[in-house]
Amino acid sequence: MGRWAPDTPGRLAKAALDLYSERGYEQTTVAEIAGRAGLTERTYFRHYADKREVLFAGSAALQEVFVAAVAGAPAGTGPLRAVAAGVDAAAGMFTDRRDFARKRHEVITANADLLERELIKLATLSAALSAALRERGVPDPAAAVAAETGVAVFKVGFERWVAPEEIRGLPELVYDTLETLTGMAAEGAEGARA
Amino acid sequence: MGRWAPDTPGRLAKAALDLYSERGYEQTTVAEIAGRAGLTERTYFRHYADKREVLFAGSAALQEVFVAAVAGAPAGTGPLRAVAAGVDAAAGMFTDRRDFARKRHEVITANADLLERELIKLATLSAALSAALRERGVPDPAAAVAAETGVAVFKVGFERWVAPEEIRGLPELVYDTLETLTGMAAEGAEGARA
Repeated sequence: MGRWAPDTPGRLAKAALDLYSERGYEQTTVAEIAGRAGLTERTYFRHYADKREVLFAGSAALQEVFVAAVAGAPAGTGPLRAVAAGVDAAAGMFTDRRDFARKRHEVITANADLLERELIKLATLSAALSAALRERGVPDPAAAVAAETGVAVFKVGFERWVAPEEIRGLPELVYDTLETLTGMAAEGAEGARA
Repeated sequence: MGRWAPDTPGRLAKAALDLYSERGYEQTTVAEIAGRAGLTERTYFRHYADKREVLFAGSAALQEVFVAAVAGAPAGTGPLRAVAAGVDAAAGMFTDRRDFARKRHEVITANADLLERELIKLATLSAALSAALRERGVPDPAAAVAAETGVAVFKVGFERWVAPEEIRGLPELVYDTLETLTGMAAEGAEGARA
C-alpha cells in the first residue's frame, strides 16, 4: 500500500477500480482496464494474474506489517496489547488512499465472490496473527481469540473509515473501536451467562 | 441442529459427510450419497439443493437462536453481555453431535470453496447480530464490534470443541473463551498504542 504513485501497477489498479465502480465488476474486461490505463493487456497480466487480483494486491503487505508489529512488541506485552500494536501499524499504512478504499469496498460488498475472497484474506490474517502470538509464548485460546479480536477491530474500524462523510483517519478510528470494545469487556466480564 | 434423529435429511447428511470424509468432497457425487443412505437422488434433491448445502443446512437455525437470545436479553443488558447470551444459547444447540461437527470441520477446512461459504455464514451471522443490537438501541461502533467479537468467541470456542481429544462441552468452552477475552481486555484497556 503506502503512498499512491503513478506507476504501472498503480495505474492499472486505478483504471480497474474506476471501471468496476462505473460498470460493475462482472461487466469489465481486462482489455478495457488496460485500455483505460493506456496500456496493453499483456502489461496487465505482467502485474496481475486476473481481474480479481488487482483488488487484493495489498493483502500480503498488510499482513506483513500487522504481524511484524505483533512479533516486535516489547517482551511482556500482553496478547491483546500486542495485537493492538499490530492494528495500529496496519492502520498507519492507509493515509491518502481513502477514495480508492471506498470504491474498493463498494465493489467488493456488491459481489459475493469478491466478498468471499476478502473474508478468506481476513481469516488468513487472523491465523498469521495467532501464530505470531504463539511464537511469543501466548497459549491458546488466548492467542486465537486475541487474533480474531484484532481482526474484528481492524475490520470494524476500516468499515467506519470508508463510510460516506467520515473524515477521521483510520488510526483514530481503529483506536476508538478498540477502546469501545475494551470498555464493553470490562463491563461484561462477569456477564457471560445473562 | 438439535438432537440427531434418523430422519431422511439426517440420514442423507450423515451419508454425505461420511463420504466427504472418506473420499474427499470433490470426489463424491450426489448419487453416491443417496446410495449410501439407501435413498434415491431424487429424494436427496427434495431436501438439499446441491452437494454443498447438506453441510450448511443448520446455519439458519443457528443464526435464529443466536439472534433471538440477543434480542431477548433483559433491558439494560450491555451489548457484550447480550451477545454473550446469544453465544451461550447457540452453544447449547450442540450437545450430542460432536462427531458430526468434527468430520464437518475437517471437510470444510480442507476445501477452499467450503471454507469461503463458512466464512460468509459467519459474516452474515455477525451482520444479523449487530442489527439486533441496534434494535436494542446500541449505537455503532459498539453494535458492530460486539457482534464481531461474539462471532469470534463462538468460532474459537467451536474450534476448541472439535479439536481431537477435547471432552469439555461447547457451552463450557465458549464461556471459557469469552472469559479469556474479557480478562485480556481488562489488562489491555489502556494499551492500544504499545
